[in-house]
Amino acid sequence: MTFPVVGMVGGGQLARMTHEAGIPLGIKFKLLSDTPLDSAAQVVGEVVIGDYRDLDTLRAFAQGCDVITFDHEHVPTEHLRALEADGIPVRPGPDALVHAQDKGVMRARLSEIGVPCPRHRIVADPADVARFAEEGDGFPVVLKTVRGGYDGKGVWIVRSAEEAAEPFRAGVPVLAEEKVAFTRELAANVVRSPHGQAVSYPVVESIQVDGVCDTVIAPAPDLSAELSAHAQQLALKVAAELGVVGHLAVELFEIRKPDGSFEVLVNELAMRPHNSGHWTQDGAITSQFANHVRAVLDLPLGDPRPRAKWTVMANVLGGDYPDMYSAYLHCMARDPGLKIHMYGKDVKPGRKVGHVNTYGDDLADVRERAAHAAGYLRGTITE
Amino acid sequence: MTFPVVGMVGGGQLARMTHEAGIPLGIKFKLLSDTPLDSAAQVVGEVVIGDYRDLDTLRAFAQGCDVITFDHEHVPTEHLRALEADGIPVRPGPDALVHAQDKGVMRARLSEIGVPCPRHRIVADPADVARFAEEGDGFPVVLKTVRGGYDGKGVWIVRSAEEAAEPFRAGVPVLAEEKVAFTRELAANVVRSPHGQAVSYPVVESIQVDGVCDTVIAPAPDLSAELSAHAQQLALKVAAELGVVGHLAVELFEIRKPDGSFEVLVNELAMRPHNSGHWTQDGAITSQFANHVRAVLDLPLGDPRPRAKWTVMANVLGGDYPDMYSAYLHCMARDPGLKIHMYGKDVKPGRKVGHVNTYGDDLADVRERAAHAAGYLRGTITE
Repeated sequence: MTFPVVGMVGGGQLARMTHEAGIPLGIKFKLLSDTPLDSAAQVVGEVVIGDYRDLDTLRAFAQGCDVITFDHEHVPTEHLRALEADGIPVRPGPDALVHAQDKGVMRARLSEIGVPCPRHRIVADPADVARFAEEGDGFPVVLKTVRGGYDGKGVWIVRSAEEAAEPFRAGVPVLAEEKVAFTRELAANVVRSPHGQAVSYPVVESIQVDGVCDTVIAPAPDLSAELSAHAQQLALKVAAELGVVGHLAVELFEIRKPDGSFEVLVNELAMRPHNSGHWTQDGAITSQFANHVRAVLDLPLGDPRPRAKWTVMANVLGGDYPDMYSAYLHCMARDPGLKIHMYGKDVKPGRKVGHVNTYGDDLADVRERAAHAAGYLRGTITE
Repeated sequence: MTFPVVGMVGGGQLARMTHEAGIPLGIKFKLLSDTPLDSAAQVVGEVVIGDYRDLDTLRAFAQGCDVITFDHEHVPTEHLRALEADGIPVRPGPDALVHAQDKGVMRARLSEIGVPCPRHRIVADPADVARFAEEGDGFPVVLKTVRGGYDGKGVWIVRSAEEAAEPFRAGVPVLAEEKVAFTRELAANVVRSPHGQAVSYPVVESIQVDGVCDTVIAPAPDLSAELSAHAQQLALKVAAELGVVGHLAVELFEIRKPDGSFEVLVNELAMRPHNSGHWTQDGAITSQFANHVRAVLDLPLGDPRPRAKWTVMANVLGGDYPDMYSAYLHCMARDPGLKIHMYGKDVKPGRKVGHVNTYGDDLADVRERAAHAAGYLRGTITE
């Protein structure tokens, strides 16, 4: 048997679900995890416990792996280059991944290739933030540290130069962006292989609560065929131009133009399976996780088309009740078609500990089922 | 978190796929496997290597498990009773499982509860086989050792008393059955929980080649609604009367009666996920594996209905080419909707090393896709 070994760096839920998707392919899966209790480390056979920031650890882990891929985007670029120099394929590679690691690099590159983004520039200090505001429509302004942010962390919305001091304290370059008056958030998810084959999932609507993804609706309701195709083409262009291998999530702002038509601006990029693609586990012919595995192995990609008219994903956040398992009785009995995906993580308030998927022909019903289950598991709905 | 620990005895592909189905539920999975190279042992996090025939090994394994279930039916009944006496739930329990372990017990019990079976009785020696033949329509007669057979092993079709010597050599009681002139083989798969909730999957057609399952078509084509409902009710009755917990496969012979109508006789029982249910992984709302896990944990069961008009499963047997991975390129490129399920087993001629699922609206096309992929992976189709 010549089945390859996929080395996954990072033990979070994305690694867990990628392992799950890899089992049917018969590939070997090897995990580098911070602790044996991490989400993926609980369910993977071959686990190495170690720190991905340590090059020697990474190098030792990569021995015997046919390809390295990631649960997160935090591995230092120079470490990835060292692995490549050792002859280990790294997918996505460091030249692509830097665009998901550094928002400054990402904005510069997207602008260069003509991908529409919010107005932006690197700012030096709070006074420079005030100048950035004056160059456009004034405050509020969005400030982001170029590295290290996710799920609303590393992002500030400031209404004055005085409020702008905090982001500069980390000593990381700060990117200023106009605060876009978007109508909603969308995501265009694509998967690309080293061969250059790419597939595009339907564009989805992503509903955020407190800066964290709450609900994803696939496909995005009331999205014109033109704008949907345009968003998919943008994502495919980004994947090709940046040399992405694997899953690429392009988070978008939908904005209404003065003439009443809509356009999209790119908000963020993620080069790994992404929360906005979790619906594909139960709603698409091939899930984002299965296609990510196929892409990093340079296998032909699977059909990304939806299996249901509507699929809705709702994140399950930790609430006040640590025991989510007992909630299964109600949720499963109420909805025999409910698909639960838990991550094996301890419940902490606000922490993503799982998600649910529902699908069907009636969007209102599909949304209600997902919202009910997610709320009941969290403990905010009790009947 | 109070997520339970499911102890799975046996490291074969059924355990592997049950683990895969358990990951989304966030349950803990612990495996007792003969070797670290067994199919499931490659992909499960917590693996104990040991012999399930040794009671001390079983008892030590069961410590910390909330429930014990099985990849196969070979654990001695007295060991299961000992675990139950230790306070460990065993699902299915020994009183049910014995009917899948011992064909003599199974036939006696099914006859007692009025479930139609082929004519049968325990036979003492070759001369007794001749008397059994004379009691009915003569030779050929089917002989089975009451324990230890599967996939055609432990089964003989004999045409004379002289040919009947072999089955008696093992020193195991031998069951004689009439050789049924069936029109085709069907399977009725149900899942039952300790609460007594049960779900029934669509009745499928199972096509055997050389005594080994080759293709399963879901639902069985041209099956009348009446006979389908009757077969489902038979399987539900067997599950309830025998106290089955978990997945029960009832393998059936379809026979044409003199008046041109059809009826079914029970061929075999399996109390675990079963080859005839593999199609549910991609073709049903809830797979047999997910429902088996839910049943053994006494959780409400998931919707067993099909997601596609037709789903076809084709087994991948080992052929002359040990490298199946390189065949992925052709198979995946030819059919982006193909679902491959490999077991991580070394290729040996005739050995089940995986299966493929296909689904769609056109049965001929769906069958062709499955047969092509299975044949190409095996090496019997080369273009």
